[in-house]
Amino acid sequence: MKLWQKENSKKTDEIIDKFTVGKDRELDINLAPFDLLGSMAHAIMLTSIDLLEKQELKNILKECKIIYNEEIKQGKFEIIDGIEDVHSQIEFTLTSKIGDTGKKIHSGRSRNDQVLVDMKMYLRHKIEEIVGLTKGLFDALQAKSELHKNDLLPGYTHLQIAMPSSFGLWFGAYAESLVDDLISLQSVYKIVNKNPLGSGAGYGSNFPLKRHLTKELLGFDDLNYNVVYAQMTRGKMEFLVAQALGVFANTLSKMAMDVCLYNSQNFGFINLPEEMTTGSSIMPHKKNPDVAEILRGKANKLKGLAAEIAFVQTNLPSGYHREMQLIKEIIMPALDDFADALNVATFMIQNLKIKENLLDDPKFDLLFSVENVNQKVIEGMPFRDAYRTIGGEIEAGTYSPIKELHHTLEGSIGNLCNEEINTMMNETLKSFNFEKVHEAFEKLLNYEVQ
Amino acid sequence: MKLWQKENSKKTDEIIDKFTVGKDRELDINLAPFDLLGSMAHAIMLTSIDLLEKQELKNILKECKIIYNEEIKQGKFEIIDGIEDVHSQIEFTLTSKIGDTGKKIHSGRSRNDQVLVDMKMYLRHKIEEIVGLTKGLFDALQAKSELHKNDLLPGYTHLQIAMPSSFGLWFGAYAESLVDDLISLQSVYKIVNKNPLGSGAGYGSNFPLKRHLTKELLGFDDLNYNVVYAQMTRGKMEFLVAQALGVFANTLSKMAMDVCLYNSQNFGFINLPEEMTTGSSIMPHKKNPDVAEILRGKANKLKGLAAEIAFVQTNLPSGYHREMQLIKEIIMPALDDFADALNVATFMIQNLKIKENLLDDPKFDLLFSVENVNQKVIEGMPFRDAYRTIGGEIEAGTYSPIKELHHTLEGSIGNLCNEEINTMMNETLKSFNFEKVHEAFEKLLNYEVQ
Amino acid sequence: MKLWQKENSKKTDEIIDKFTVGKDRELDINLAPFDLLGSMAHAIMLTSIDLLEKQELKNILKECKIIYNEEIKQGKFEIIDGIEDVHSQIEFTLTSKIGDTGKKIHSGRSRNDQVLVDMKMYLRHKIEEIVGLTKGLFDALQAKSELHKNDLLPGYTHLQIAMPSSFGLWFGAYAESLVDDLISLQSVYKIVNKNPLGSGAGYGSNFPLKRHLTKELLGFDDLNYNVVYAQMTRGKMEFLVAQALGVFANTLSKMAMDVCLYNSQNFGFINLPEEMTTGSSIMPHKKNPDVAEILRGKANKLKGLAAEIAFVQTNLPSGYHREMQLIKEIIMPALDDFADALNVATFMIQNLKIKENLLDDPKFDLLFSVENVNQKVIEGMPFRDAYRTIGGEIEAGTYSPIKELHHTLEGSIGNLCNEEINTMMNETLKSFNFEKVHEAFEKLLNYEVQ
Amino acid sequence: MKLWQKENSKKTDEIIDKFTVGKDRELDINLAPFDLLGSMAHAIMLTSIDLLEKQELKNILKECKIIYNEEIKQGKFEIIDGIEDVHSQIEFTLTSKIGDTGKKIHSGRSRNDQVLVDMKMYLRHKIEEIVGLTKGLFDALQAKSELHKNDLLPGYTHLQIAMPSSFGLWFGAYAESLVDDLISLQSVYKIVNKNPLGSGAGYGSNFPLKRHLTKELLGFDDLNYNVVYAQMTRGKMEFLVAQALGVFANTLSKMAMDVCLYNSQNFGFINLPEEMTTGSSIMPHKKNPDVAEILRGKANKLKGLAAEIAFVQTNLPSGYHREMQLIKEIIMPALDDFADALNVATFMIQNLKIKENLLDDPKFDLLFSVENVNQKVIEGMPFRDAYRTIGGEIEAGTYSPIKELHHTLEGSIGNLCNEEINTMMNETLKSFNFEKVHEAFEKLLNYEVQ
Repeated sequence: MKLWQKENSKKTDEIIDKFTVGKDRELDINLAPFDLLGSMAHAIMLTSIDLLEKQELKNILKECKIIYNEEIKQGKFEIIDGIEDVHSQIEFTLTSKIGDTGKKIHSGRSRNDQVLVDMKMYLRHKIEEIVGLTKGLFDALQAKSELHKNDLLPGYTHLQIAMPSSFGLWFGAYAESLVDDLISLQSVYKIVNKNPLGSGAGYGSNFPLKRHLTKELLGFDDLNYNVVYAQMTRGKMEFLVAQALGVFANTLSKMAMDVCLYNSQNFGFINLPEEMTTGSSIMPHKKNPDVAEILRGKANKLKGLAAEIAFVQTNLPSGYHREMQLIKEIIMPALDDFADALNVATFMIQNLKIKENLLDDPKFDLLFSVENVNQKVIEGMPFRDAYRTIGGEIEAGTYSPIKELHHTLEGSIGNLCNEEINTMMNETLKSFNFEKVHEAFEKLLNYEVQ
Repeated sequence: MKLWQKENSKKTDEIIDKFTVGKDRELDINLAPFDLLGSMAHAIMLTSIDLLEKQELKNILKECKIIYNEEIKQGKFEIIDGIEDVHSQIEFTLTSKIGDTGKKIHSGRSRNDQVLVDMKMYLRHKIEEIVGLTKGLFDALQAKSELHKNDLLPGYTHLQIAMPSSFGLWFGAYAESLVDDLISLQSVYKIVNKNPLGSGAGYGSNFPLKRHLTKELLGFDDLNYNVVYAQMTRGKMEFLVAQALGVFANTLSKMAMDVCLYNSQNFGFINLPEEMTTGSSIMPHKKNPDVAEILRGKANKLKGLAAEIAFVQTNLPSGYHREMQLIKEIIMPALDDFADALNVATFMIQNLKIKENLLDDPKFDLLFSVENVNQKVIEGMPFRDAYRTIGGEIEAGTYSPIKELHHTLEGSIGNLCNEEINTMMNETLKSFNFEKVHEAFEKLLNYEVQ
Repeated sequence: MKLWQKENSKKTDEIIDKFTVGKDRELDINLAPFDLLGSMAHAIMLTSIDLLEKQELKNILKECKIIYNEEIKQGKFEIIDGIEDVHSQIEFTLTSKIGDTGKKIHSGRSRNDQVLVDMKMYLRHKIEEIVGLTKGLFDALQAKSELHKNDLLPGYTHLQIAMPSSFGLWFGAYAESLVDDLISLQSVYKIVNKNPLGSGAGYGSNFPLKRHLTKELLGFDDLNYNVVYAQMTRGKMEFLVAQALGVFANTLSKMAMDVCLYNSQNFGFINLPEEMTTGSSIMPHKKNPDVAEILRGKANKLKGLAAEIAFVQTNLPSGYHREMQLIKEIIMPALDDFADALNVATFMIQNLKIKENLLDDPKFDLLFSVENVNQKVIEGMPFRDAYRTIGGEIEAGTYSPIKELHHTLEGSIGNLCNEEINTMMNETLKSFNFEKVHEAFEKLLNYEVQ
Repeated sequence: MKLWQKENSKKTDEIIDKFTVGKDRELDINLAPFDLLGSMAHAIMLTSIDLLEKQELKNILKECKIIYNEEIKQGKFEIIDGIEDVHSQIEFTLTSKIGDTGKKIHSGRSRNDQVLVDMKMYLRHKIEEIVGLTKGLFDALQAKSELHKNDLLPGYTHLQIAMPSSFGLWFGAYAESLVDDLISLQSVYKIVNKNPLGSGAGYGSNFPLKRHLTKELLGFDDLNYNVVYAQMTRGKMEFLVAQALGVFANTLSKMAMDVCLYNSQNFGFINLPEEMTTGSSIMPHKKNPDVAEILRGKANKLKGLAAEIAFVQTNLPSGYHREMQLIKEIIMPALDDFADALNVATFMIQNLKIKENLLDDPKFDLLFSVENVNQKVIEGMPFRDAYRTIGGEIEAGTYSPIKELHHTLEGSIGNLCNEEINTMMNETLKSFNFEKVHEAFEKLLNYEVQ
């Protein structure tokens, strides 16, 4: 008895078609605005070297703007049945409106450099989205850090109670972590933000294309000069983005792990908002931190992303290979997922409640032993001796904790340096300079043929 | 200017809902038949310990069969809006037809062991599908190996021409590789095929559930005895399946790499069927092996799968955690993708054409040098001396190849041992014993309440 | 100012030499006994096809036994300066004692199949070592499970207290996990345990070598028939072993994580033996679970092992490539490390002390809510209603736990089924059949030339 | 019969000792200069807040300089038996010379922030080494690119001959790739190069330590402000370095794959220098590209490095855990290995010989088809029509290639833009600003107590 039989009954050509086209058609919707802007820039450049006439350019730009404003911006753009991908769809729409001129925008371009330039603009855009969402999470963490700067929290090492910490420190640590994560993303942005147009299928062209012109029109910082290298950035840029997500993933999953642990009855340091917990189908008392757990899991899943992309391209010799196309399926949903994760993490931080006066509980007295040791050092005893003295008191049961804390050290309980961390964040944000891209696109969409 | 703004504008509760439910509703369709069969078995068992009355059981089984035959088998089963997952949907349908009795099938079960038993039956089923498709590919490879057993092929080491090989050997190597891959999958099947029902949320139950009875009814080989361990198999079994796919992936990607290389003009050893190649948008002469490349890429992508699953569960202490749910999203599409890959690989092998008489080309003369060396050894010269003699002839340009090959060695050009390899395959196939599951399901669907 | 300058000043040929030889010379010591046994078997087989004379064979076997008994078994075997690897060293020693006959054992063998057969015997041996150590850990876990079968422990899901568990269940869960881990390793053993000798450099030989004879002499179960496939098992077998270690790693790291958590003051469920904890350089009260943490870390590190090996061989076309040699450096130290980890884990389990009467603490009362719900179900109330009733009592503060537990379910607190789990273990152990290898080696070392 | 029994016979305490100490003692030699410089800076700072007297500081600095100049710089520094690690060794040496003052340098420091600051300085140093070696490889590639700018090479896509390329382009592509790789490394350097000293065990200290002072003395760019975050950089920085190596690995392994392929008789585009090839033990004609293969393998092995480090720290809650120590064992040998790989790659590029006039061979005529198509477009024919025309000629066998190439496009055959790529490289190099560190160290080693 065979119960279900789905895959086996399909016809070969359907299987091969599904196998090769994959999810291109649905994923390519993400590329539509960029493909269109790229085509506009390419057409302007072709006109500058007399491969298009001015009137042809006018027609092209006019129709492009219509598609852009009436279809793409309205979320109405779609790839119709029988059309393979976004590039063909846009060429098809243009040609159906302005005839053969529509075909001419393919001159001096290969499908390969078209995909490359689209992907670079798409990744640039998604990086901008992530940066914005990261700033939101950072602000939430800094706000909580300031709010709870005087609320103490046990600090652990080896999961053993160690020294006094504070919620101010704890929230602030994740805020500062995000600054470094953004520094890492910033270099990825810099590598992505170079113009590959003109590299063709990876070996350039005998057309005298002006690559600096399309660079300016599309807001890139520089060129991928060498055309063979330009082609090699396919896969490489997605790998770099995946690596950067892996860096953020470390921060987010550690934060979520802390939240799940602190929410456990055995710690009991925080309360999660109602929307973020669920009950159990058999245990009526449960308030499970499902959202934090899924956040943790989604972040951890991202840690495998770069390796997945690396496997696809390992040991492929130079030159394009078709499986590079599969990388779109890997990176695009991950970027959307990650944006959700940042949103959810921000909501979680904004809404979790901390428990006050945790260190009044005598079970945390030992946290203060280092304070006692250091006090003796300040009074002149060598460190090793002070350590032995307090250790002896603990063993003898005569130890009495110093609970008055006077930390003035930069970055410690009493001096969080959130201001300085905020400054580092702002400098990092500024270095992305997304405005440059916005201005280029604004100008391109309003380009007047002279 | 902001161009597109998708994620940021969503409301928090929508984001959290999407974040936690994820793709459960669409993926759970895959679990429907198993969830239903599992519920039938559980109900029969509950009746045997007097937690259900016979009449209640009759009603339950009757409705279950209707859902099974009229919805699931017809591909009409769906999870309606507002219902969270497949388990709730089936309970909801039952309850709407037979009232409170429908609720009772939840007694002695947790959502956790319900998902576990569903996933185990689902994985068992997908393994069966893969085994069948692998057998198809194996047969295609063996057929080609026999067909081309006398067609020589240059054998390479270090990508340098080395010794004479044959298409018979080349096809046959991948066939034998699949046997070992199936041995690896067989142990996974053995580990998966144990009954977790009764483990509840991971700590069992004070109900006197008969776990051996549900084991028999559902065709499992044994129990996951310890209930805490039963819960630990969540994630572990998917990890094991992912590892097994990684083993097949090695075989498939290497085969696809050979195909792409042999199809290159620099090798020119094979011709791919028209359906498996595509042209280029700028180069009119190209016949690109896209399907083989995508096969290679899909296989390589699978190599990251086990690590991705491992990341999600690393360092989670014992006991269920919500992100285990994410693993469904990782493993299910991968299994479907892999089935497609096996289908496509089979089609590729069946349809590729080899080039004959390749070794007549003098550029391959050096391939025969080992033959010459060994001939001298057979004639009595020590190996190292024979090696130096032939080496000297090659350098001096006086070398003349022996092109008559008389290999009798088991597994070599002249003695492929395909029969023996086929026997190994059949023994491996037999060890899965899928019939046992089919018979159990047949019996369960026709169960008569006494 | 340059501070240190180590690498740059080296000479090119030294760098290249270090780069290519790598750690071969030190790692190859591990292969020495197997290389020797493999050479003995090959010599016997060569004699059977008249490529060696009986007197030559006698000389070879005699010297081999001397090297085996006086150097290898005494731990005195070494690879002298200027000799590249173990294979050359053994040939060199033989030749220096018995002259040209020593060279003849290279007839019909390539360095490639020599390394392959050595690695297979080495991996077989290490698998046997791991199986033995796993049995030791299993026994320790089972003994503790029986000892503490009546000692209750809070059961958690989502890190929230959930239902009553017991130390008996907890120890027993890891014991049963090891059974499945061994099933996974058993299929790897089966795949490894096939004779590659005769496959030469991957294309066989025109010598009429008797591959079934060397198979018998070396205790293999079967042949890797197809010689091209035999060569493909290089890398594949190490990958499979690495995957299997990854399966054990899941079990060990989860166990170690539980230990670290239970050892935290916030849980306080266990005490670790003095030898397994360390203090802090600044906190005199700390007793850190360093050994459990390192165990966790070493296990988690193993999870990346299979991917590392997969990267090295991804997209290499068929036929040997030199970097396959690097895989020795990856797998060999990992196997040694893993044996240490099993030893340490066993010691840890044997020596940790549990805390009794944990569930008397009222903070764990809610653990019993499912008991209360189920009691109502047994008394006739539908599950969903019972659930709501108890849930209401918990919210109203009127809930009173049932602390008398009567679990009879297979695998639950009251019925651990350790006997059945032990039976599964013994059956798994038996299926390896290591005796067969021991007998073959015994026979080979005592082989008398007729 | 048991053949070898190594691990099992060891005593428990030895096993545990080996297990926990691991390779710390040998690896820590790498940290010695940094530990010493860190201690000097810490002592100066302690004096500035009156926790050390000036005379004590003088004694400490004097002895530190002796250890630095006479032991470390001479390569004589070692960790003696019974001393656990580099930190203890240096403290021990100091104390044995200047008595109790030596102990005082531990005031206000934890082992944790001492390791952190050492690792940061070590990683900074290794990054500088890598940057230098990368510049060497870059220069070699650029020199070859210029030398061979007029030597044509077939360009491939899908491993199918596609369009004309050149050795100038091919070498130049890898040069430009290294620029992006260094941009990626530069952000890692920026993240690493922040002062963690003062963070103690992750919760700061009640001493009024001046963290900006040690920052200046040790040449850091900024602080890791938040002390909890400072501790989180353990593992994070090594992960980031590993990611960066993975980026370079992509470049190196692709280059090595090209070399192996081009060296195959089926391509025959290059000749490797004698030192980089080896023969075969059974095939006298072989010249195998072993060094390029090992380069490829070592690079590919690095691709798993970041995942390995990620596994060790996944889901560890905030606060130090002992297994972080294992990460040293992962990253340190990888950095040394990678330096070797860069050296070997540079040697390979400098010494490989290219074959001239490759495209005169008629089998490459189709490479020029795009030239023909584009020529027609320049003459006024729409692209799609030109494409069909040339395609028709190819099918009809009437196609005649245009072999005169006039590419003026930036980054193409005729206009490599090596100058611009060199400028990008120099800007990237400048941004590291290693001089700042050298100057700080110079100053610190010559610090005069006022």
